[in-house]
Amino acid sequence: MSERNKLASIQQKVSQIVLHKYFTGTILGLIMFNAIVVGIETYPEIYQSHKELFFLIDKALIWVFTVEIILRMIAERRLRDFFKSSWNWFDFLIVAAGHIFIGAHFITVLRILRVLRVFRAISVVPSLRKLVDALLLTIPALGNIMLLMSIIFYIFAVTGTMLFAEVAPEYFGSLQLALLTLFQVVTLESWASGVMWPIFHEMPWSWIYFVSFVLVGTFVIFNLFIGVIVSNVEKADAAEKPDEPDQIAELRNEVKELKQLIISMSQHNNKK
Amino acid sequence: MSERNKLASIQQKVSQIVLHKYFTGTILGLIMFNAIVVGIETYPEIYQSHKELFFLIDKALIWVFTVEIILRMIAERRLRDFFKSSWNWFDFLIVAAGHIFIGAHFITVLRILRVLRVFRAISVVPSLRKLVDALLLTIPALGNIMLLMSIIFYIFAVTGTMLFAEVAPEYFGSLQLALLTLFQVVTLESWASGVMWPIFHEMPWSWIYFVSFVLVGTFVIFNLFIGVIVSNVEKADAAEKPDEPDQIAELRNEVKELKQLIISMSQHNNKK
Amino acid sequence: MSERNKLASIQQKVSQIVLHKYFTGTILGLIMFNAIVVGIETYPEIYQSHKELFFLIDKALIWVFTVEIILRMIAERRLRDFFKSSWNWFDFLIVAAGHIFIGAHFITVLRILRVLRVFRAISVVPSLRKLVDALLLTIPALGNIMLLMSIIFYIFAVTGTMLFAEVAPEYFGSLQLALLTLFQVVTLESWASGVMWPIFHEMPWSWIYFVSFVLVGTFVIFNLFIGVIVSNVEKADAAEKPDEPDQIAELRNEVKELKQLIISMSQHNNKK
Amino acid sequence: MSERNKLASIQQKVSQIVLHKYFTGTILGLIMFNAIVVGIETYPEIYQSHKELFFLIDKALIWVFTVEIILRMIAERRLRDFFKSSWNWFDFLIVAAGHIFIGAHFITVLRILRVLRVFRAISVVPSLRKLVDALLLTIPALGNIMLLMSIIFYIFAVTGTMLFAEVAPEYFGSLQLALLTLFQVVTLESWASGVMWPIFHEMPWSWIYFVSFVLVGTFVIFNLFIGVIVSNVEKADAAEKPDEPDQIAELRNEVKELKQLIISMSQHNNKK
Repeated sequence: MSERNKLASIQQKVSQIVLHKYFTGTILGLIMFNAIVVGIETYPEIYQSHKELFFLIDKALIWVFTVEIILRMIAERRLRDFFKSSWNWFDFLIVAAGHIFIGAHFITVLRILRVLRVFRAISVVPSLRKLVDALLLTIPALGNIMLLMSIIFYIFAVTGTMLFAEVAPEYFGSLQLALLTLFQVVTLESWASGVMWPIFHEMPWSWIYFVSFVLVGTFVIFNLFIGVIVSNVEKADAAEKPDEPDQIAELRNEVKELKQLIISMSQHNNKK
Repeated sequence: MSERNKLASIQQKVSQIVLHKYFTGTILGLIMFNAIVVGIETYPEIYQSHKELFFLIDKALIWVFTVEIILRMIAERRLRDFFKSSWNWFDFLIVAAGHIFIGAHFITVLRILRVLRVFRAISVVPSLRKLVDALLLTIPALGNIMLLMSIIFYIFAVTGTMLFAEVAPEYFGSLQLALLTLFQVVTLESWASGVMWPIFHEMPWSWIYFVSFVLVGTFVIFNLFIGVIVSNVEKADAAEKPDEPDQIAELRNEVKELKQLIISMSQHNNKK
Repeated sequence: MSERNKLASIQQKVSQIVLHKYFTGTILGLIMFNAIVVGIETYPEIYQSHKELFFLIDKALIWVFTVEIILRMIAERRLRDFFKSSWNWFDFLIVAAGHIFIGAHFITVLRILRVLRVFRAISVVPSLRKLVDALLLTIPALGNIMLLMSIIFYIFAVTGTMLFAEVAPEYFGSLQLALLTLFQVVTLESWASGVMWPIFHEMPWSWIYFVSFVLVGTFVIFNLFIGVIVSNVEKADAAEKPDEPDQIAELRNEVKELKQLIISMSQHNNKK
Repeated sequence: MSERNKLASIQQKVSQIVLHKYFTGTILGLIMFNAIVVGIETYPEIYQSHKELFFLIDKALIWVFTVEIILRMIAERRLRDFFKSSWNWFDFLIVAAGHIFIGAHFITVLRILRVLRVFRAISVVPSLRKLVDALLLTIPALGNIMLLMSIIFYIFAVTGTMLFAEVAPEYFGSLQLALLTLFQVVTLESWASGVMWPIFHEMPWSWIYFVSFVLVGTFVIFNLFIGVIVSNVEKADAAEKPDEPDQIAELRNEVKELKQLIISMSQHNNKK
């Protein structure tokens, strides 16, 4: 048996393992186990007294996930096929980052990476993957309205910084701060009680700024909302009844055939 | 008359009573009376001076409801039929719990049970029962998006506990607390003024955590919302016009018959 | 000329006046003038120095409106016809109340009545009247869901009063107070920062009460929302294309006629 | 070559420049450069040390934009054509205002004008222009409901000022203040915790005012919302399937032709 055939047979076997129903189940189980471990770690009293154990579990999990990714890479015909799916990229990066940052001194980064591994539950469960794909697909359609929103945010942030930097430095002290404050305002959270009223008492005309931003901001978000609803209803409608117009078209063809038939018949009669 | 026939005739009589229009009306009246009593009990000055009376009323009500449930059980052919409906289960458990906890020392449990009996107004009024059934039916369709939401909540809660446990122990002191805080944040209630700004002043990069959670959380809820609207509009559309495609199909059949008729006629003519 | 004819001719003239385009315009103008006057009155410095003037203007306006209502009553054939429209009732009551309370010592009631007269702008402008009629028409359809909401509110209010009356008397001190607090919670306003957290620090299990109420409350309101959207989309759909099924039905009739024609023709041929 | 032809050829050349793809690109680039400059200006430490540079850049930008507007005016056949588009008016006014206020002592006005120039990004990018046009088109349809909202706001504001001016002068001290407060209340921001509760403790009946305003206000906004959704879904539906009824109409014509054919045939047969 040549080297090549050997490799091919190994690949086939790996492919069988990867596609086996227990494989995904096991990985999902390990991801959930990882999630629970990471949750328990947040309790300092438990974490401090079992530090070693948590370290070992994490080490074990990262190697199991690494083997899983490598098996799935081998199972694909070519490595390129593996990296075609953005979900595989996601899995790969999450696991790879665990190895890269292992020596990192800043322990929090490592811990957050361990938490992010829980996101792999989405990439492993097909129905969740489809759902997230569908959610992400609605984003590009919102491109223009988001661009518009950015322009509005930027103009109001610059204006806000100019006008209120001295009166309310905690909200409009700098451009970044103003953008964050405007994000708070657009969610309508304490926009009046927290942000507007204190400024209003110093500058009575400041209500124009806030009311116009609230009106414009919610109006644009509201239209974004409606745009998505309408496009979804349309899509659903289109998916539902594709056959009716076709039925009518076929009916027309049948009537045409009938006409041809009658005409030919009448010509036949006339000849007689 | 044999024992069996006697039982059957009793069952029939009970069934007549249970299905009588005054039966449901009386029960509904008693439930509303129970509701009013329970409402008056919340005023300590009235409750303290008439404790005995309230105790007696409650005793009477629970026995009336017990008799009602027993009558409805007898009215069914078999006991199994009674427990087929989850609404009957609900009625049964609410009333049974009243008997089980009657000796409980913790008085609040008993009082809450008495309040929960008001929920039986839903199980007694058919239109409300249908409405609640319809509302509950929309929940399974949201399964996947709720699973996704749980994963997002869990990951953000663990990360939040890791990052902010020391800075804001009142919001992120433990995993449970962080989950509750995130629920507050996703309803957009004081997410900035109450939760983010105090943390922001200690850790200026913390806005990334909050803004990303608000964006992701509201985006997912927003899509959940749209999904339900679209599926409802679709259902309504489907229910509205089921006959149109059928009409076209019938029309096609008629045209086909016509064709057959003409063909047979032309063959007949040719034979002549 | 008899008494009766005289009356009839007067009624006809009044009817012409009432239906004249300037009549509604003048009344609308007076309502707006009334609105402006009422607005100026809220400035104490102006009101105090021109009290007499405001009193005279109000006296004049109420008599003009009284004459208007009387004219509109005369213009109708019978008084009963006038009171058939609920808008006329509304106009009548607003104006009549002005006369009834004129001697009232509690000046605020009188002033509020004067403000409520501005609402007559809605009853005078037909497009606004139609809009409000349409808005009010959506309410009965919400009957069941509002009944359900009331039951949920009542049960949670009673439970809340039982559980939290001592810990948070400012929010749950009595049944009325609890209902008001729950209304605040269902609008998601300070439900956590203002209401839940202070109670939570005393009773750590209280989050169950609040989270479940927020979930149930927003879920029911959300379904109420969707119900209205769907029923409106349906109505709009139904109004849009009433002719298509009819067209198909007519087409079917035509095809049937054709069939009859061909059959009769073939019978005719056979007879020959 | 005559004067006129000379002018025409100049106009043609200018038109070519203006319509060139690089022209719009350059202008968009300059607008973005303007946006960045205006953003950097908000940092006092940078602005103070490079005041001269910022002044020069602004001078240069305003003249470039002026030349751009003049070129676009020349490119149009007549000046009137230029001013037909409201977007051109917008561009013209933004740039003209920069020249008019150049000598203004109140520096803030000038700086805000410079920020507003960023809005020109919308008028330059066609897809954004279309989006904003579409958004603005939805406003007139809301005319009636906005009129109704204004009446409700005005009546509640006057009543609120009457009732609460002395108890809560910071929210209801004057008519303007009351309108602003009501705007806050309708966004559900701190309506209870900030506005109602303090008044409620003085006047226990004040909840009627706030609860009724919240119910009426959100109900009207909610209907405004639904109206826009329904009209958009309708529009989308209408745009989607304009051909189906036509198809049926054509089909009916074909069936009629068929009928004529058969009738003429049968008459022909009878004549034989």
